[in-house]
Amino acid sequence: MTQERVHSHDVTQAAHDVLLERGVKISDIAEIVFEMQGPYNEKLKMEECIESVEKVLLKREMQHAILVAVELDRLAEQKKLSEPLQTLVETDEGLFGVDETIALGASLGYGSIAVTTFGHLDKNKIGIIEKLDTKRGGGIHTFLDDMVASIAANASSRLAHRLRDIEENLPKNERRIIEDE
Amino acid sequence: MTQERVHSHDVTQAAHDVLLERGVKISDIAEIVFEMQGPYNEKLKMEECIESVEKVLLKREMQHAILVAVELDRLAEQKKLSEPLQTLVETDEGLFGVDETIALGASLGYGSIAVTTFGHLDKNKIGIIEKLDTKRGGGIHTFLDDMVASIAANASSRLAHRLRDIEENLPKNERRIIEDE
Amino acid sequence: MTQERVHSHDVTQAAHDVLLERGVKISDIAEIVFEMQGPYNEKLKMEECIESVEKVLLKREMQHAILVAVELDRLAEQKKLSEPLQTLVETDEGLFGVDETIALGASLGYGSIAVTTFGHLDKNKIGIIEKLDTKRGGGIHTFLDDMVASIAANASSRLAHRLRDIEENLPKNERRIIEDE
Amino acid sequence: MTQERVHSHDVTQAAHDVLLERGVKISDIAEIVFEMQGPYNEKLKMEECIESVEKVLLKREMQHAILVAVELDRLAEQKKLSEPLQTLVETDEGLFGVDETIALGASLGYGSIAVTTFGHLDKNKIGIIEKLDTKRGGGIHTFLDDMVASIAANASSRLAHRLRDIEENLPKNERRIIEDE
Repeated sequence: MTQERVHSHDVTQAAHDVLLERGVKISDIAEIVFEMQGPYNEKLKMEECIESVEKVLLKREMQHAILVAVELDRLAEQKKLSEPLQTLVETDEGLFGVDETIALGASLGYGSIAVTTFGHLDKNKIGIIEKLDTKRGGGIHTFLDDMVASIAANASSRLAHRLRDIEENLPKNERRIIEDE
Repeated sequence: MTQERVHSHDVTQAAHDVLLERGVKISDIAEIVFEMQGPYNEKLKMEECIESVEKVLLKREMQHAILVAVELDRLAEQKKLSEPLQTLVETDEGLFGVDETIALGASLGYGSIAVTTFGHLDKNKIGIIEKLDTKRGGGIHTFLDDMVASIAANASSRLAHRLRDIEENLPKNERRIIEDE
Repeated sequence: MTQERVHSHDVTQAAHDVLLERGVKISDIAEIVFEMQGPYNEKLKMEECIESVEKVLLKREMQHAILVAVELDRLAEQKKLSEPLQTLVETDEGLFGVDETIALGASLGYGSIAVTTFGHLDKNKIGIIEKLDTKRGGGIHTFLDDMVASIAANASSRLAHRLRDIEENLPKNERRIIEDE
Repeated sequence: MTQERVHSHDVTQAAHDVLLERGVKISDIAEIVFEMQGPYNEKLKMEECIESVEKVLLKREMQHAILVAVELDRLAEQKKLSEPLQTLVETDEGLFGVDETIALGASLGYGSIAVTTFGHLDKNKIGIIEKLDTKRGGGIHTFLDDMVASIAANASSRLAHRLRDIEENLPKNERRIIEDE
């Protein structure tokens, strides 16, 4: 194939752009993270939550999942999906689970805390997730609300692991390795 | 191999036996299912929840997961695991996630409702799960509390799919196929 | 919501239709199943493989995944996806994994044999999967080839479990329950 | 709980120790990685494969999974598991899938390449995996062979992502972030 490959920078940028275009700010997601992890770490600061969300958004798997999720939501808004998929997505049909599959797939990389936090957020709809889910403003966010739950869950799990590294006084280079590898 | 294969009946029986031995009755799990699905189905009866739990317990993957989970809990109670695994399991260490991995693996078979319900139950500890988690009575249930969440989540998802079949007036034979296949 | 819900029959029909439209016959998938399970069961007949594929295609989660997969392939063919997603899908970019995520999600319901068979098929491209992957004829099948691997993997795992039921001489009603629940 | 928490260093050390005790050297796993990734990268060196395996072994989720896997194998060798679990593990019963569940759970963190490579390795048993699987020497490695497939799959996926970072000439600090976060 002679077609040029997409550069990582462009994918990263696109993932950030589509989140903003769909009304999701990094601080919205960080607020969920703060609510999830605050009870386990009384010194937790919002900046750490924001940084954790930003790190999660650097993962290729996460970026790809966001692009697919937003694309399907947008196409559904524009009534451009074929039936019966159009109706399934438009109505956020209760037994339709591809949205959760894509989001869960992007959460499996951050360990069991991410998976259970994802399930909790997906069921209890906190903060921006609730706003997306109830479609205030008329948009369709069938896929995006699950992705936001996934990003928040991953950023939460990441902080839990990082907190342990700090508690154990691991030297920074080692901490980094244990944390990020 | 000359060794005889274990018959399905024996595995089924063993899975039921160990649950009871560890203090988990089918009705305990059914109560969680009732609490989860009641809000979506006002006519839901406890008998249906009990039947759904029993069906879930017939799955080979579920039975195998239960046997492994209870075995590891029992060995930890008897201090028979090697260190550092003994301490990790005994203290239900927060970043130890093999218990959730085994339980989630047994939930993935029932679709996205099962997965999100599992996450919710695992985080919010309802009914018998809370009793197991807080170790009233001194036992170790690091693996079993997650398995109970998994069984309850599956039975809940199964009921949600079954309700749809009934709402759609599918003839019984077809309903059965769609439900169970 | 006043919009009518889509009936299961329509989703089932649509999933079958789109497979055929994209050039995938049930017998094509059954051939892969035969190749996978034949070595474990010398009496295996093609009809059993076909029946197993048909049963797998009755699952809601599978049908939904097929509809999403084919939709994304079709939109990519028509150049209707936004960039950079259009290029990622069109070129079947090696590190893009949402296609595998959706397909794997639909395979997790059939146990570990399904998951390892899916991985094997996805890597070794057998039969119709290879034809789809190499895009003979110019179409884009980035998502569909993985879905076909998923269907074939599930039908294979289902046959392995069914064979055991028969070997154990379980009475038909019980066999059914153990097999399908 | 007054009991002391296990330090990360001890878990890391234990995971390395049990692999060696069970006859699995890092270079054995690196050889599988080389075989998997060599075809995609003609300049690939064994040292890179070894380094990649070592990085994968620093992950907490991976270390915990290894400890559980080896513990169950050892207990089965010593005939210390309860029946029918003892027989299921001892005979590596074909429909028993908890071994794959634990190993797959540890692979989901490295993206779709890890998952399909895991399935491929689990089915096609390459190198040390084949030696473990055929139990030359009389040991039981029902769980460990799957874990080795998981480690090798993760190290392979990690190299594929890293190669892309290098091809794109990302500056080292950014490469690191994109690679490891």
